[in-house]
Amino acid sequence: MNTGAFSLVHTAMRAGVEVCFANPGTTEMPIVLALDRAPGMRVVLGLFEGVCTGAADGWARMTGRPAATLLHLGPGFANGIANLHNARRARTPVVNWIGDHATRHLAFDAPLTSDISALTGSVGWTRTVKSADEMAEASLAAVEAALGPPGRVASLIIPADCQWEPGPEPLSATPSPALRETPGPALQEAARLLRKGRGGILLGGNALTVPGLHAAARVAAATACGVWIETFPSCQECGRHVPLFPALPYFPEQATEALANVASLVLAGAREPVAFFAYPNQPSRFLPDGAALCKLADPEVGVDAALALEALAQELDAPTGVMPPRTVPAFVPGGRPLTPDTLCRAMAAFTPENAIVVNEAATTGLTWNAEHASNAAPHTMLFLTGGAIGQGLPNALGAALACPDRRVIAFQADGSGLYTLQALWSMVRENADVTVVVCANRRYRILQTELARTGIAEPGPKAQALTDLTRPVIDWPALAKGFGVPSCSVHTDGEFADALLRAFAERGPSLIEAVLA
Amino acid sequence: MNTGAFSLVHTAMRAGVEVCFANPGTTEMPIVLALDRAPGMRVVLGLFEGVCTGAADGWARMTGRPAATLLHLGPGFANGIANLHNARRARTPVVNWIGDHATRHLAFDAPLTSDISALTGSVGWTRTVKSADEMAEASLAAVEAALGPPGRVASLIIPADCQWEPGPEPLSATPSPALRETPGPALQEAARLLRKGRGGILLGGNALTVPGLHAAARVAAATACGVWIETFPSCQECGRHVPLFPALPYFPEQATEALANVASLVLAGAREPVAFFAYPNQPSRFLPDGAALCKLADPEVGVDAALALEALAQELDAPTGVMPPRTVPAFVPGGRPLTPDTLCRAMAAFTPENAIVVNEAATTGLTWNAEHASNAAPHTMLFLTGGAIGQGLPNALGAALACPDRRVIAFQADGSGLYTLQALWSMVRENADVTVVVCANRRYRILQTELARTGIAEPGPKAQALTDLTRPVIDWPALAKGFGVPSCSVHTDGEFADALLRAFAERGPSLIEAVLA
Repeated sequence: MNTGAFSLVHTAMRAGVEVCFANPGTTEMPIVLALDRAPGMRVVLGLFEGVCTGAADGWARMTGRPAATLLHLGPGFANGIANLHNARRARTPVVNWIGDHATRHLAFDAPLTSDISALTGSVGWTRTVKSADEMAEASLAAVEAALGPPGRVASLIIPADCQWEPGPEPLSATPSPALRETPGPALQEAARLLRKGRGGILLGGNALTVPGLHAAARVAAATACGVWIETFPSCQECGRHVPLFPALPYFPEQATEALANVASLVLAGAREPVAFFAYPNQPSRFLPDGAALCKLADPEVGVDAALALEALAQELDAPTGVMPPRTVPAFVPGGRPLTPDTLCRAMAAFTPENAIVVNEAATTGLTWNAEHASNAAPHTMLFLTGGAIGQGLPNALGAALACPDRRVIAFQADGSGLYTLQALWSMVRENADVTVVVCANRRYRILQTELARTGIAEPGPKAQALTDLTRPVIDWPALAKGFGVPSCSVHTDGEFADALLRAFAERGPSLIEAVLA
Repeated sequence: MNTGAFSLVHTAMRAGVEVCFANPGTTEMPIVLALDRAPGMRVVLGLFEGVCTGAADGWARMTGRPAATLLHLGPGFANGIANLHNARRARTPVVNWIGDHATRHLAFDAPLTSDISALTGSVGWTRTVKSADEMAEASLAAVEAALGPPGRVASLIIPADCQWEPGPEPLSATPSPALRETPGPALQEAARLLRKGRGGILLGGNALTVPGLHAAARVAAATACGVWIETFPSCQECGRHVPLFPALPYFPEQATEALANVASLVLAGAREPVAFFAYPNQPSRFLPDGAALCKLADPEVGVDAALALEALAQELDAPTGVMPPRTVPAFVPGGRPLTPDTLCRAMAAFTPENAIVVNEAATTGLTWNAEHASNAAPHTMLFLTGGAIGQGLPNALGAALACPDRRVIAFQADGSGLYTLQALWSMVRENADVTVVVCANRRYRILQTELARTGIAEPGPKAQALTDLTRPVIDWPALAKGFGVPSCSVHTDGEFADALLRAFAERGPSLIEAVLA
């Protein structure tokens, strides 16, 4: 007789789930046993739940299909929330399986009991299984909820008895990750607004694929509108093969200035741009008063933005664009100290074709994004979407397992990287082709900027200590060694370039600590 | 003009809060500035929020007074939930300050926006500040809520504008952490039940202090009742100076057997014992049918269990006990391979008087608890209360800062230690006298036991992989080096004893990887 856990796992597999990022405990043992005997289901241990959820996010960003996570009750799920928050903002499909105490045991309020659904509800769709009979149907419902459109985080809370009791026959549905195709009447509205002049387009979602970016360029050529990319996209095609558009700036004063002359803004896969944080004398919204806003492809209902842009280009009779060839600055090896600029320049020179760059490099990552990614070979960039740091290394793990034939570069700030550094270990166990580049400026640079923005001329020692990562200096090569990852530390662009080339020549993970001057 | 943040911080200081474990972001900058200029308030940076909340728990377990944490919106708080869950189960007073977007900015659903109160509500008392005018009163209310009795986790959600706008004069109240003194009519009931014979007492909370344990011994001597200690106490006085009682066993079949002959159970600072997890053919409750239950000192309403036991001893005319001197097995240095037994034996021989042992050593920790702690010099033990692993290293940090004249031993399982290993860095920065002993069995041993309990004769490779921490082996000395902690690795009890003595002779943290055979 098959268990409820068997029904869960096999239904999910038939619905397209082929990997489970797991850190289970006692309440998940029947699911562990079901995974154990499910050929074709890959099971990856994370040493911390934030690794599991971030890896599931990375996997799904690259495949469009959800991975499962297997997490241990409320506290185990809580450890994964930060990266699920990022997945929620990226609209990534993720399916969480969270064990709970057996139904009859809940009333006794045993030590690990907590209100799990309060936690799961904070990041998306949630359902608590009531009986083993539901296990196939609930499993499919979670995959369908995750796929959307739009993609979302879907969490199943599964009491242990629902796992271990006899379960129903697995279901055999294969929901597919389709975006909605019709932009609807917004298409004519967008064309009308852009024809009037002083228009703008903000790109997000799948507008950042190759077809989407080319269509946006055609629309821009036809209407002389401005085009921006949302500040924190989920997944963006980058490099010499696609048109180059600026990201909308991060700080309100700069974003407001960028959009100052816009009479209308067409949203293609992006939401209306708002400030990441509020400041005492800065606006929350960036658009000038009276500017029109048109939702051509609303990401919150899952409209296909690339198709919508192509339809818009056609509507506007836009000529098929010919991209001018881009001149790539040659990299001359040297002994220049590493700065965000020299580091990114070297990386742009050597990024392998078809690489995946997971960009959680914070201040250095903005430099990459703004000035260097477009000069590199064609690659895909994943970005920190929800501001919950610690996304980079787990995302890189998941992306590498999703795309075993592509090189992943985890372009990582040191402060954020410390949040989920346990991902390094799983990279070794899974032999993931991830080259981790730690941009070691040894501080929370963004917070130093924010401190300065408060108007404080000279922060005292306690405020300074909160943004400083020296005392003691963090030895990233030693941390890498601790988790079994080969590593080195470099101080100049020449050393960095050599280290990159060595890393790319080998299979499996390695870590380069790039010490910034 | 003082800010709301100033009102918050100074009110909390006057109410007895003297340390803040922080990992702030932009929405907490005004609080950072207020902390910066608050002489007497210690500010400790954690590289991950679970470090901050676990340290606050450890601080409060040793002082009875809350520390503050400073956390960055929903995801920052979420990273701290697991250790707050443990604090909730320990009934530890903790005050969380969580920044949120400025009130006017919330409606725009910026990337870091989430339902914070859903998260904070899951671990205790919560309040969202609505205006800077409330900041003094809300700050005091949070400290009062945390102190209880019983102690609890109290969370203030503080929009950034409430921090930066002008705030009221700080309040000057000094709530004190008093337990309730009256056991009430339960005293006579407990005496009556125990006089009838076949009685038992279950100790928890402050029944595990020196006076509480001695009073329990007097009651046992007077009534021949059994005495057990709750399986996962918050804080327990251990060593040769206190009577030795067994912990109630972890597994249901063993706990049920231990209590099989009990006709009545008196709860002194503990709740009714229930199974940590449910199993298909095991009960949730341990007491035999018909056994009477008496709440002499109910921890959920904060009754002083030590005083209640003393009153019970007096009610029973129990003689003042004379503890028989305990024979301490001598430690003969040798080359014995490290097992839970040889390791604990060496540790018992050298634990310094008045040490604090933070026991998150899982299966090895149970051996310490059951057989060796009572032979060691007088010390205080902190335990994993809520089952949310990753409590040990942060707890040790907090306990060390609370008690700078006491040596802390972080007795740590390897699997759990990896959850919040970032605490090592803060130990160095704060020069905390913590000796970390990593019990490296290189597996999730408890899960291997649980797998076996499912009745599976031979788990397959995927189930095995989920409980195995080799491939690659984790190099703890390298991880320690990465965070600046001096370290070594030992394989025999003689090497371990030498390493302990070296560690105790130095100030500041160090780490010993004890590789179990």
